[in-house]
Amino acid sequence: MGRKSDARQRILDAGADLFGKRAYSSIGVAEVCTAAGVPKGSFYYFFPSKQALALEVVNEHWIWQRGEWNRILTGQGTVVERLRNLFVTTAEMQSEALKGTGSVTGCLFGNLALEVSSQDDPVRTRLQEIFQEQIDIVETVIREAVRGGELKSTDPRAAAKAIVAQIEGLVLFAKLFNDPGQLEQLWQNSMNLLGSEKFAAV
Amino acid sequence: MGRKSDARQRILDAGADLFGKRAYSSIGVAEVCTAAGVPKGSFYYFFPSKQALALEVVNEHWIWQRGEWNRILTGQGTVVERLRNLFVTTAEMQSEALKGTGSVTGCLFGNLALEVSSQDDPVRTRLQEIFQEQIDIVETVIREAVRGGELKSTDPRAAAKAIVAQIEGLVLFAKLFNDPGQLEQLWQNSMNLLGSEKFAAV
Repeated sequence: MGRKSDARQRILDAGADLFGKRAYSSIGVAEVCTAAGVPKGSFYYFFPSKQALALEVVNEHWIWQRGEWNRILTGQGTVVERLRNLFVTTAEMQSEALKGTGSVTGCLFGNLALEVSSQDDPVRTRLQEIFQEQIDIVETVIREAVRGGELKSTDPRAAAKAIVAQIEGLVLFAKLFNDPGQLEQLWQNSMNLLGSEKFAAV
Repeated sequence: MGRKSDARQRILDAGADLFGKRAYSSIGVAEVCTAAGVPKGSFYYFFPSKQALALEVVNEHWIWQRGEWNRILTGQGTVVERLRNLFVTTAEMQSEALKGTGSVTGCLFGNLALEVSSQDDPVRTRLQEIFQEQIDIVETVIREAVRGGELKSTDPRAAAKAIVAQIEGLVLFAKLFNDPGQLEQLWQNSMNLLGSEKFAAV
């Protein structure tokens, strides 16, 4: 059982690595198996299809990322400081990826979103849910900051959506230019999107 | 000669259509030829490779889009009204695509950017140039509006980059949710990114 679990995890890791680097549709089950060092039969023992693997890779990545977000957003400092920490960490992760692999990996969800959006795909539905959840989390933080008098916002939902869109847009630039520095503007832009310039220097 | 030119244009049209719908790496020369109704020899008469075709598709799309942008941005109204027209037109094009094809097509440049960014590819270099040019155009408009007293901006370059990133992020949502309505926030968000909320109702 230990060995089987290990094979499942190696398939998931190989999938996450490959889907993060290249187009989803260009990656076949055989390539995932080679990267994971497992036979095809082992793949199909755990996953009925490449789509099922992608769904699980997306889920695992979101469980991890949501955990990181919640850890940072319930951490030390004012609500605004915690939100800023989240953005600093986002930029740092892209810098770490650049150091480790030579490439800014970008956002797994954004990368996949642009590809699966022209198909009816359970991965697409899951990505829609994840982006809604990201917007929910940012909205909750904004509402908390507004209640505590740290921020002003006439429409926290719209601001949260604008901020998540801004993250995706800047991460796209970071990936295209292979330059995590593209994310330096994220905090200032997010504060502007809230119409709260005076907090930008926090 | 008429016939050859026609074949070239049909290959370009088929490429634009396929690269807009699916992952670049999942599309082969054979598929492009079938869609264009030309033999493979005809393809290689005009294009040395799929990459060369992609580069030409990207160039043609930018020449067209830049023309549209310049037409709108030198058109009627105040500078701010023209900038707003550009965003309204961007949203309308996604709505038109939805009516015509059943799908929000998104941004050809953004779609390709996320895919080619992990490769050393002339397409990537060209996309970098195009996004820089988009930022240049928006920056020029902001500076013009600032000179005319229509807008305030302490950093027109940063604001222009934030706005182009915001477009890409919201277009990603429009594509993922197959909902051009995601772009309704674009103007309000852009004005916030300029720190010019009071102009948002123009």
